[in-house]
Amino acid sequence: MQLGMIGLGRMGANMVKRLLRAGHACVVHDKSLEAMAVLEKDGAVGARELGRFVERLAAPRVVWLMIPAALVDDAIAELAPRLAAGDIVIDGGNTHWPHDIRRAKELAARGIRYVDVGTSGGVWGLERGYCLMVGGDKESVARLAPIFDALCPGLDAAPRLPGAERLGSAERGWLHCGPAGAGHFVKMVHNGIEYALMAAYAEGFNLLRHADAGLSARAANAETSPLEHPENYRYEFDLAAIGELWRRGSVIGSWLLDLTAQKLAEDPALSQFDTKVKDSGEGRWTIEAAVQTGVPAHVLSAALFDRFASRGEADFEGRVLSAMRRAFGGH
Amino acid sequence: MQLGMIGLGRMGANMVKRLLRAGHACVVHDKSLEAMAVLEKDGAVGARELGRFVERLAAPRVVWLMIPAALVDDAIAELAPRLAAGDIVIDGGNTHWPHDIRRAKELAARGIRYVDVGTSGGVWGLERGYCLMVGGDKESVARLAPIFDALCPGLDAAPRLPGAERLGSAERGWLHCGPAGAGHFVKMVHNGIEYALMAAYAEGFNLLRHADAGLSARAANAETSPLEHPENYRYEFDLAAIGELWRRGSVIGSWLLDLTAQKLAEDPALSQFDTKVKDSGEGRWTIEAAVQTGVPAHVLSAALFDRFASRGEADFEGRVLSAMRRAFGGH
Amino acid sequence: MQLGMIGLGRMGANMVKRLLRAGHACVVHDKSLEAMAVLEKDGAVGARELGRFVERLAAPRVVWLMIPAALVDDAIAELAPRLAAGDIVIDGGNTHWPHDIRRAKELAARGIRYVDVGTSGGVWGLERGYCLMVGGDKESVARLAPIFDALCPGLDAAPRLPGAERLGSAERGWLHCGPAGAGHFVKMVHNGIEYALMAAYAEGFNLLRHADAGLSARAANAETSPLEHPENYRYEFDLAAIGELWRRGSVIGSWLLDLTAQKLAEDPALSQFDTKVKDSGEGRWTIEAAVQTGVPAHVLSAALFDRFASRGEADFEGRVLSAMRRAFGGH
Amino acid sequence: MQLGMIGLGRMGANMVKRLLRAGHACVVHDKSLEAMAVLEKDGAVGARELGRFVERLAAPRVVWLMIPAALVDDAIAELAPRLAAGDIVIDGGNTHWPHDIRRAKELAARGIRYVDVGTSGGVWGLERGYCLMVGGDKESVARLAPIFDALCPGLDAAPRLPGAERLGSAERGWLHCGPAGAGHFVKMVHNGIEYALMAAYAEGFNLLRHADAGLSARAANAETSPLEHPENYRYEFDLAAIGELWRRGSVIGSWLLDLTAQKLAEDPALSQFDTKVKDSGEGRWTIEAAVQTGVPAHVLSAALFDRFASRGEADFEGRVLSAMRRAFGGH
Repeated sequence: MQLGMIGLGRMGANMVKRLLRAGHACVVHDKSLEAMAVLEKDGAVGARELGRFVERLAAPRVVWLMIPAALVDDAIAELAPRLAAGDIVIDGGNTHWPHDIRRAKELAARGIRYVDVGTSGGVWGLERGYCLMVGGDKESVARLAPIFDALCPGLDAAPRLPGAERLGSAERGWLHCGPAGAGHFVKMVHNGIEYALMAAYAEGFNLLRHADAGLSARAANAETSPLEHPENYRYEFDLAAIGELWRRGSVIGSWLLDLTAQKLAEDPALSQFDTKVKDSGEGRWTIEAAVQTGVPAHVLSAALFDRFASRGEADFEGRVLSAMRRAFGGH
Repeated sequence: MQLGMIGLGRMGANMVKRLLRAGHACVVHDKSLEAMAVLEKDGAVGARELGRFVERLAAPRVVWLMIPAALVDDAIAELAPRLAAGDIVIDGGNTHWPHDIRRAKELAARGIRYVDVGTSGGVWGLERGYCLMVGGDKESVARLAPIFDALCPGLDAAPRLPGAERLGSAERGWLHCGPAGAGHFVKMVHNGIEYALMAAYAEGFNLLRHADAGLSARAANAETSPLEHPENYRYEFDLAAIGELWRRGSVIGSWLLDLTAQKLAEDPALSQFDTKVKDSGEGRWTIEAAVQTGVPAHVLSAALFDRFASRGEADFEGRVLSAMRRAFGGH
Repeated sequence: MQLGMIGLGRMGANMVKRLLRAGHACVVHDKSLEAMAVLEKDGAVGARELGRFVERLAAPRVVWLMIPAALVDDAIAELAPRLAAGDIVIDGGNTHWPHDIRRAKELAARGIRYVDVGTSGGVWGLERGYCLMVGGDKESVARLAPIFDALCPGLDAAPRLPGAERLGSAERGWLHCGPAGAGHFVKMVHNGIEYALMAAYAEGFNLLRHADAGLSARAANAETSPLEHPENYRYEFDLAAIGELWRRGSVIGSWLLDLTAQKLAEDPALSQFDTKVKDSGEGRWTIEAAVQTGVPAHVLSAALFDRFASRGEADFEGRVLSAMRRAFGGH
Repeated sequence: MQLGMIGLGRMGANMVKRLLRAGHACVVHDKSLEAMAVLEKDGAVGARELGRFVERLAAPRVVWLMIPAALVDDAIAELAPRLAAGDIVIDGGNTHWPHDIRRAKELAARGIRYVDVGTSGGVWGLERGYCLMVGGDKESVARLAPIFDALCPGLDAAPRLPGAERLGSAERGWLHCGPAGAGHFVKMVHNGIEYALMAAYAEGFNLLRHADAGLSARAANAETSPLEHPENYRYEFDLAAIGELWRRGSVIGSWLLDLTAQKLAEDPALSQFDTKVKDSGEGRWTIEAAVQTGVPAHVLSAALFDRFASRGEADFEGRVLSAMRRAFGGH
């Protein structure tokens, strides 16, 4: 079938390639002519202007937006007047799900369908396929099934589990999760989990790296407690080898571990990487949703706050603590 | 080569089976005659008495202990007088690593070598192979390499990573991590990570399960804040399908997710499982090691404390909080 | 000066009493005739109908709302048409500060001033005075100073600190914190801190209560690690005496500790109090604000999630963890 | 009565002063002649040599050690041979309580009594009095009561609570908490609570300081989520005034807040204080005790790990996270 893609960054461009490979027709639009040119070579039809882009799509149209979440509302505002009842707009970016609920209502007034797709897979999706978490009305999602089937990894991407056959397309790597916003909600929680998985490995490797604490002396005075048993902390571990080791047979094997092992193999000190860690919105929204619904999220929140702290945002907290210590103890 | 195994529980018995399959000779000892009988059918030589067990091993002997950590010291006390210089004792259980350091010293006085092996793989190890984290002297570990190679998953168990070829046996699933205790130290951190990975998924699925909070009314009064936007929390997610979905193409795919998806596929409410979660020692020791070395472990510790709290150990904390609320607010 | 109070619950009624004692004139309104009757005996003027209530206030009017946060918008909707330009509406409840920003704008269109007051002090405020965190325009706040001075604890309530004299009314217990919403923002963070202070004591007392762990046996098996040194955990502490002890000379003395000590003195087991702990909105909003602004809040969030967990909201998390343990270890 | 004090640092010297003021006789010993000279002016008897120190004490002797915890064992080793049955040795420092249990046993073999005293009060203790948490045998503690009564703050230091009269000396600020180690155990938990109280305020003030986040622009791109409602974060709070404000009438008033307010009044930016925060042993041991006894300590542990992270100990964790992000997302 035919699909129009707006936004040809890393994600959007690769998705178009995967769709083209599967035999779907793609009309593409991006402010970068170069990005369009690359895909035109692969068989996509480029359209510099939004009006042209819409014209080249056969009704009922399918338009997939793969752009920064902050720009989606503006893009829809430009696009909607050019669309017709029965057309489908898909937001495949990292949108906060309440916006999906609002937009679905707003577009419904024009007869336009809105589908939200949480997309996982990163730069690897082109080859591995994308895990797609879909929200929207049943009819629209059913219409889009061929698209999702082309983008998703497919059944062979993981060993089949007994009983999973009744879970439908989930077994291939895409799922209609529920009404508007459901896709981005599930993707949000997915990323909340991702942050915590990452932090679990990162805290663990950090601890392994400090297993040599007993090799350096620690002063004993009223303020610092000496390492009680330095003889127990004299290991200089090969983190690259341990990362590799855990990939086979262990309980903690995962795709994230594969990636970590790869990076550690390249440079066990990871010296080229920043100690300051960025975060995008989903990790934050996950905590907000937990707070709103009254669900404990000790682990998920700790992972998020670790990132904030990595960026120096706890510095003033430190000053307050040091000031208190000075005040009561003269430290 | 030949190996003696003491302890034929789930882990020990399966390891013997895997060794026998690989052509190694096994002498086995357990208080359960039945457990021995099963393995004798597979070709192992059983020995009811410890003296006989040792006699049937050719010097220099290799004895692998696969018994509860709390029983290892007693077992070594019985065993050591029957062994000779050059023999190797392996502790493959969940031992706190400082015990390894002590034991290695104690046994060295008799010329006996001590090797600690952290073993991951659980009941799946028989088929998948075991991930082995090994501590001890180089010579002993080198001598045991054929054993480890038979037990570990092997190179094919995961896709090869560029540059990993220089990591030696780690690529097959076993690693000489360092001197005495190094194996159990790495295994300990492995389990600390495991707890946090598990908690990440568990908190995430719990949040998904509460995404329907807006469907039930929440009273508005001075004490309870109403759900601010109930319209955003009206999802009734199919957790089994979502667990399955994330197995393909997503960033959070892992072996633990595979297991979770399997359990959710069997019963999405997991109603047969206890809300109270047990823990063994490694998760605890990980936090103690972090505390000793001054390494932040916000995420790893939260996962452990979640388990403690699941068992009602925070109940008195709750009473103190409720008492305070009564005291200042009359709540 | 004259003030109209709407809402004569515990907080509102006591504030009126304190204002009357200070010589201010109070017009009061509540759906409970009984609540009004009590205050009329103290000199307040009661008004059953809202119209009457407004009539009895001399322009420019001051109306203080002391009602559940969820009801404030409705109350303002009823009230505003009866007010005139120059009148001041005060929200003294537990409002989410963005509502203050919105309301201040809405009321400004009618020339009505809006002042938000975060109020701390609970049932003790009548005697101790209330700590008042005020947001709004300078002119309105200046006009209300006599009211705030009557409600606040006053300079004598705490020892004077050197240099604090330049902090103005803060030294007496009320402060103009900033424009609309500033009062409730500061009150929100105040409560976020309150939750964590409470949890600090509660976790500490809970730990003291478990200091007898070594007196009861703990089984040693593959799944449970035995208490390593039971001889170190044989204390049966008198929590009431310890609570009292810490009130004098220690670094952790506080008003919350005073209250806790009182409750422990009455019943060291706190058996009448629920293990399930409620929370109102401010603790939640604090975490949301931290998440929005990218500020680490490991401690504040842990205190909130402890409460959620106390109410059983982590139960499904526990089931997921138990299911995983069964899946990989056969536990 | 007579007491010998070894260790005339800030704490020991001030305690001697307080004892002298109360009419007790003090023999003092320190490697610093200057420290001894100061106290000799106040009426203490100085002894340069340990032998002389012991000679000047009348049997049965009372020797109080106020020295770094790491040095106590050596000091006792020197001291014990010079003491006689019936003498009492007190460790008033920050000792890990299991050492108390061991020492009490070791000294009992010589008929020497051992008493552990957890001491809170810091540099303020001279004037405020010290909160004393005492462990040891009943008879020894009874004998020392006059000493404790002189050091403690006394009944007037806090308002009396109904029912507290039956709590004995706890009301004056010292308590016999239990057998050997009980004093330091209670002091340890006290400090664990202290860390969390401090972190609660520090995180709260840090959040207030970032309440101006909406005043500076935050870029909107695929990696950074924009502040959703910048208009809600435009407060520039006067932290000094807020610290002062909360001291009167609020639920979160405390001695620690008094100290914080004082420091903020001196310099609201606290620019002279380090962002890196030290910790001594008790906060760590508290977490270890919680881990050992299976007691949840989400809040107490978060406070400790905040300090570790403040010192850059999470830096490698950050590198691991950044490496993962690069690996899967090309970020």
